[in-house]
Amino acid sequence: MNFTINKDVLLENLNYVGRALSNRNIIPVINGILFILNNEGLSLTATDNEITIKAFIPRDDIKEIREEGRAVIYGKYIIDIIRKLPNEDINIEEIDGGKAVISTHTSKYNLNCFEVNDFPDIKIETVSNPLKLTSGNFRDIVNQTVFATSTQESKALLTGINLKIQGNLLECVATDSYRLAKKHVKFDSVLDHNVNLVIPAKNINEFVKLLDVDDATVEVHPFTNKVMMKYKNILYQSSLLNGTYPNTDTLVPSDFEVIYKVNLNDFFNVIDRASILAQAKDKNIISLETNQNKLIITSSNPEVGKIEEVMNMEVIKGDNIKISFSARYMIEALKSFSGEEVCLYFNGEIKPIILKENDNGDLLQLILPIKTY
Amino acid sequence: MNFTINKDVLLENLNYVGRALSNRNIIPVINGILFILNNEGLSLTATDNEITIKAFIPRDDIKEIREEGRAVIYGKYIIDIIRKLPNEDINIEEIDGGKAVISTHTSKYNLNCFEVNDFPDIKIETVSNPLKLTSGNFRDIVNQTVFATSTQESKALLTGINLKIQGNLLECVATDSYRLAKKHVKFDSVLDHNVNLVIPAKNINEFVKLLDVDDATVEVHPFTNKVMMKYKNILYQSSLLNGTYPNTDTLVPSDFEVIYKVNLNDFFNVIDRASILAQAKDKNIISLETNQNKLIITSSNPEVGKIEEVMNMEVIKGDNIKISFSARYMIEALKSFSGEEVCLYFNGEIKPIILKENDNGDLLQLILPIKTY
Repeated sequence: MNFTINKDVLLENLNYVGRALSNRNIIPVINGILFILNNEGLSLTATDNEITIKAFIPRDDIKEIREEGRAVIYGKYIIDIIRKLPNEDINIEEIDGGKAVISTHTSKYNLNCFEVNDFPDIKIETVSNPLKLTSGNFRDIVNQTVFATSTQESKALLTGINLKIQGNLLECVATDSYRLAKKHVKFDSVLDHNVNLVIPAKNINEFVKLLDVDDATVEVHPFTNKVMMKYKNILYQSSLLNGTYPNTDTLVPSDFEVIYKVNLNDFFNVIDRASILAQAKDKNIISLETNQNKLIITSSNPEVGKIEEVMNMEVIKGDNIKISFSARYMIEALKSFSGEEVCLYFNGEIKPIILKENDNGDLLQLILPIKTY
Repeated sequence: MNFTINKDVLLENLNYVGRALSNRNIIPVINGILFILNNEGLSLTATDNEITIKAFIPRDDIKEIREEGRAVIYGKYIIDIIRKLPNEDINIEEIDGGKAVISTHTSKYNLNCFEVNDFPDIKIETVSNPLKLTSGNFRDIVNQTVFATSTQESKALLTGINLKIQGNLLECVATDSYRLAKKHVKFDSVLDHNVNLVIPAKNINEFVKLLDVDDATVEVHPFTNKVMMKYKNILYQSSLLNGTYPNTDTLVPSDFEVIYKVNLNDFFNVIDRASILAQAKDKNIISLETNQNKLIITSSNPEVGKIEEVMNMEVIKGDNIKISFSARYMIEALKSFSGEEVCLYFNGEIKPIILKENDNGDLLQLILPIKTY
């Protein structure tokens, strides 16, 4: 392997695949990035056995290919070196004895390589009819739901987000069993088979971080035990969580006794301020009470003091209510909305609180109330 | 105590004194900020017994004073509350039973207060003839030296910077015994007595973070066991380290066998890149070798590989040299210079390396070489 490439081109792609490098690896070779250079271009692959990322640099973006070949170069060091080099042409050559020589006209780096044959042989596969979304849309769907996944390893399946496709409907669900986030999106095209995947939250989060523009396409290629997502020249393959994701449809009531409409920004600020005292000692409980079109948020902490916030709102339906819930859950749920207003749906103080932009909103947040008596 | 004040005015000053709040306090009352309101204005004081910060808001910057008084309010919470309130007028009232009521037209916070009498009675004193510098100048002096202080508690005195004033000369020194940073500044005025202080590095660092403009004045008021620094409306008092700071004058040779001049930016980048491999496993050693007007930096790490960097330089005096040193120390020393070029002074491979902008530079960095054979 022997070629010349522009620094920025190489660095961008190294940074993409670098996200699969883990510090906690006990298998040395997967600290490496697999370089494969042939007459079509250069592919870079990194994996931690959970996710595998492959980036491809086409021949036209490479200054000169002198000899095809392959090498596994220590990821951390090659990324550090390339990042710190000035923006000029960089030569990379694999020499006898498994060393890579990275050189510019003033710098020369000799890096020991790993054995190419030791690098895991992970197949990155595609399906013929993938789900296609714009990258902005895909990022929104994930960001509006993924925060509600569980962080407890004991609830393994709930540490992932559930992606379901039926006909022309995509539904994305996350829950930690105390709250639930659900988003659905309609497509013009219809997929010929149903899809039901549970993708680990940390893997989908890492993928979403790659989405640096809104209007590119994300392809989702589902398999039984893995999913491959394509973005630009990047292939991102993740393992799946095994098991049957709980059916959450029955958790969301279809009728509500009480419906209020609030200004999203004002409501967020009120909850955010009330949470200052609620933060103390993990007690995260705040109370919401209404009086005609006044919404009163209170929280207290015997050691520190108490807070009362009042704001106006619009009563769409029903009477006054008094209910308590986690400030943090409410804050995270509110952050998922982007409109000017949001509607709050209640069925009494021990039933789930629902948030939607309006009755037809495609994003739903559910929060279980907390009994305070 | 009962008054109305603009949010931004109060927040700015709370943030100043908040730097003295510590999370590690076992004395509850010093989690509080002492408010003293009288007809001249509002003073805010916080202390961790090591540093004490007092900010003063003059009467004219307060919307209304209804009743003078004093209170000690939980620092963390009042800062959080004021920060999250919209920018409008805020009422603060101390009510019976040691509670502070913070209110706007829609928010009401009741915070339990600490006993005013429990708050440490720390005198903040001034001298009649303080040392005066511009804030930009003061920040430079500190930032160009403080990084060389020791972080080892066992070398207590070296965890501070030594500030010496003799006549019209201020000298600031920091050393961890492996390297040394020294800056001197001449004044127009002459102080009538000598000053020799050792200020804990973390305290001076916190003070320097307050210096948000370059052209204000910093006053240094020295005492036997403390120093008070004044900036804008802020009084910042720090304890001192006790003991006789080592005399470092004899460490710096007056003659040198070898002098090179290098481009600062190029030299920094070369060292920075060579340090990539040196970082591994705390071994931070890189070697510098010269050949005519070529400067060659090498480093190696048996497990990973080796690096060689070549750059041009100007030989002011002397022959070729070969010397090894800590990449991190060199990087930190180089960051303290701002000119285009820097001079390197050597007396053989086991004698200190000196860096100065030129022979008359007022900033000196010394690094001990490392024997590699």
